Amino acid sequence: MHFPHRHLLGIEQLNQQDITTLLDLADKYAELNRQPEKHGDALRGLTQINMFFENSTRTQASFEIAGKRLGADVMNMAMQASSIKKGETLIDTAMTLNAMHPDLLVVRHPQSGAVDLLAQKVNCAVLNAGDGRHEHPTQALLDALTIRRAKGRLHRLSIAICGDIAHSRVARSNIMLLGKMENRIRLIGPPTLMPSQVADFGVEVFDDMAEGLRDVDVVMMLRLQRERMDGGFIPSEREYFHRYGLDAQKLGAAREDAIVMHPGPMNRGVEIDGTLADDINRSVIQDQVEMGVAVRMAAMDLLAQNQRAARSAVAS
Amino acid sequence: MHFPHRHLLGIEQLNQQDITTLLDLADKYAELNRQPEKHGDALRGLTQINMFFENSTRTQASFEIAGKRLGADVMNMAMQASSIKKGETLIDTAMTLNAMHPDLLVVRHPQSGAVDLLAQKVNCAVLNAGDGRHEHPTQALLDALTIRRAKGRLHRLSIAICGDIAHSRVARSNIMLLGKMENRIRLIGPPTLMPSQVADFGVEVFDDMAEGLRDVDVVMMLRLQRERMDGGFIPSEREYFHRYGLDAQKLGAAREDAIVMHPGPMNRGVEIDGTLADDINRSVIQDQVEMGVAVRMAAMDLLAQNQRAARSAVAS
Amino acid sequence: MHFPHRHLLGIEQLNQQDITTLLDLADKYAELNRQPEKHGDALRGLTQINMFFENSTRTQASFEIAGKRLGADVMNMAMQASSIKKGETLIDTAMTLNAMHPDLLVVRHPQSGAVDLLAQKVNCAVLNAGDGRHEHPTQALLDALTIRRAKGRLHRLSIAICGDIAHSRVARSNIMLLGKMENRIRLIGPPTLMPSQVADFGVEVFDDMAEGLRDVDVVMMLRLQRERMDGGFIPSEREYFHRYGLDAQKLGAAREDAIVMHPGPMNRGVEIDGTLADDINRSVIQDQVEMGVAVRMAAMDLLAQNQRAARSAVAS
Repeated sequence: MHFPHRHLLGIEQLNQQDITTLLDLADKYAELNRQPEKHGDALRGLTQINMFFENSTRTQASFEIAGKRLGADVMNMAMQASSIKKGETLIDTAMTLNAMHPDLLVVRHPQSGAVDLLAQKVNCAVLNAGDGRHEHPTQALLDALTIRRAKGRLHRLSIAICGDIAHSRVARSNIMLLGKMENRIRLIGPPTLMPSQVADFGVEVFDDMAEGLRDVDVVMMLRLQRERMDGGFIPSEREYFHRYGLDAQKLGAAREDAIVMHPGPMNRGVEIDGTLADDINRSVIQDQVEMGVAVRMAAMDLLAQNQRAARSAVAS
Repeated sequence: MHFPHRHLLGIEQLNQQDITTLLDLADKYAELNRQPEKHGDALRGLTQINMFFENSTRTQASFEIAGKRLGADVMNMAMQASSIKKGETLIDTAMTLNAMHPDLLVVRHPQSGAVDLLAQKVNCAVLNAGDGRHEHPTQALLDALTIRRAKGRLHRLSIAICGDIAHSRVARSNIMLLGKMENRIRLIGPPTLMPSQVADFGVEVFDDMAEGLRDVDVVMMLRLQRERMDGGFIPSEREYFHRYGLDAQKLGAAREDAIVMHPGPMNRGVEIDGTLADDINRSVIQDQVEMGVAVRMAAMDLLAQNQRAARSAVAS
Repeated sequence: MHFPHRHLLGIEQLNQQDITTLLDLADKYAELNRQPEKHGDALRGLTQINMFFENSTRTQASFEIAGKRLGADVMNMAMQASSIKKGETLIDTAMTLNAMHPDLLVVRHPQSGAVDLLAQKVNCAVLNAGDGRHEHPTQALLDALTIRRAKGRLHRLSIAICGDIAHSRVARSNIMLLGKMENRIRLIGPPTLMPSQVADFGVEVFDDMAEGLRDVDVVMMLRLQRERMDGGFIPSEREYFHRYGLDAQKLGAAREDAIVMHPGPMNRGVEIDGTLADDINRSVIQDQVEMGVAVRMAAMDLLAQNQRAARSAVAS
């Protein structure tokens, strides 16, 4: 398996082959995770540090389980913005951890680009677990794996991404990945929640759900990122659900075998109708979480392989 | 070993044989825990998640040590009420974790019945680590093991449970367990801290310590649950200690070989005299903590065995 | 290897031979930590509990990585002063953990002497990770190892410790260790931040950096402990940096091969110029962090060996 990357910073750096390599390995880990004993040894003897400068119960848990199942020594650092010691910069913190010889550093940070900056300073592999409005590559990869397993392919699909596009790193990484894999992407949402440079993405834009969802294969809902809407338009939840929330009626415009996705955590009754979210004939929301662990196992395995190869090259 | 349960939700679901099976296995783990190397492999390759919606340093630590000593991958989720994301329900959180294929889910929640509800939704084994005023089964089991080791038996003993019965899930689970094992139970406490349906329990009720403690074999003190006394009677600590706090003088009414218990954390000088709590001739409070780890190892081992058996049955 | 101590409470209890034994073993672990697979088994089957009553991301992380790399089951207890349950004392908490049969207890506490007190009550080995203004032995040991590796020896060096000596357990442990190893120690700082009993230490005292740094081999900067300056003199940062902050110009007074140290986290532009801190020709600040993991591995390994020996002696 060839995955020519030292870090996993974003979808931007990956090509079709990289994505396929990673998803193929993740498929194998998805099977392992369904076994009674779910232990591999790809990360045995390695140290994984999770540095979360933003709270994220589910993403941190997913990376932690992924690392432990592959035999890594996993350490969580509580790096809440409020508790970062005054006078120590992000880079000082990173350099301190770097000196402890971790092999894998999983980083979430509220500022776009912070993870890239950090990756330039450390010796280990860095995985971006979400930085500001920039990228969230493992989310896009787990979405891709979920789609590929549900639809049998990851190309020539018509995929609608709906809601708060402007504030969403999930949308940004997904648009890149799904574009690279040659799918048709539609963005649906209120103009105030649509990014200004949307024309560059090679996507179609709609502000009407009925129109935008017509004949799509995949409906990907987004979380309303109220915490990132500093000063801008904040719709009322009732009005938002009425116009942009997904329910069975709006879903009727899509293909009859269209799947429904949400990165979680869901605001039921705001972005999505609760009954529809729980309908296992349409919703693959639980599959997304399941594939999240598998994708993170695959990503860490591939990066660890590259580290070993690089060290052998230096040694010989 | 036959332990015909998928979950450990409460003492209510257990019979005499179940309790004996669990305590017998816990006795073996208590010996393991005294060895220089204290590692088993009953949970090797399994994922244990501790979801504590209420803070509990000691119970969480006990479950964490129990799981790690048996080889599980253990993960603690910080689920404080204040940090639960708005818009995500308990069930959504549980379903999310469930999708990561844990094998054992240890849950503490401030609401009675929350853990039972959760167990209906997930595929893994659920252990109740305390839910509201309802049950705290591993506490009752560790108390039972402590009594059985100190007294040589767990039946036909006279046992006084003293203090804040009304707010105590510890009392509730203990009353059920000790009743099932055919002991005589006395409840002692101020009428305001006595549950209204006490007559159903088949117990004797006292509001005087001297009378209630007469000739008992076991004195089980409870923690004053001030945090659960919403708006009701809150006694002054001095007055409470004077009337209901255990000291050497009040203990004089019990049998001379009576043992003294407390589930911790203790309010010294409120529920119990500090000197008596530390008297290793009478107090088994440290033994309770020690047996806690052993009981939790046994409970998780038995539930994991059942999971394996269930999976084999499906496979064949 | 003979290290005749049950606990590691302070440098005060160690002699030259003890220090050399520990640093020799730490040197080996420093090499292990640079390997692709960095796993030993010196602590396999043992339980390590980190009880931090004061926040310390870096020290806790260092002990956690050290334990996990040697195969221990490591558990972190969140023991923040604010979250310690009312009514439970330090000793009750320690006795509770003790009953769970940990083998190694790593303790940080804001009160001087608290860790010594605790060590008297428990059965396991206790490691002091910093107590009030008293001792921080693993910091002094990691500083010693860093110096020995950079300078080729740990004796007859001229070493300046600069800044807030009065509030610093790091300074206190370092003065003892470096004195025992027969180095010449100079303390430099404003008289208000110099301890009153300084004459007892067998050190030279300066309040001028140019004078104090003249021809020293090692410049050890300290962190300004504002949080411990209750009501006393607090210098402005600008003035402090002007007089006592280390920069290239002040460093010019030292030997041209003098190394620069700081225990972290740094206040850049207050205690030390940022550019100098990052100059790998002079600064060994990252090496200190690296050696921290190695020293803690060595300390826990030696204490665990003593436990095994003590148990064998009892058994035979």
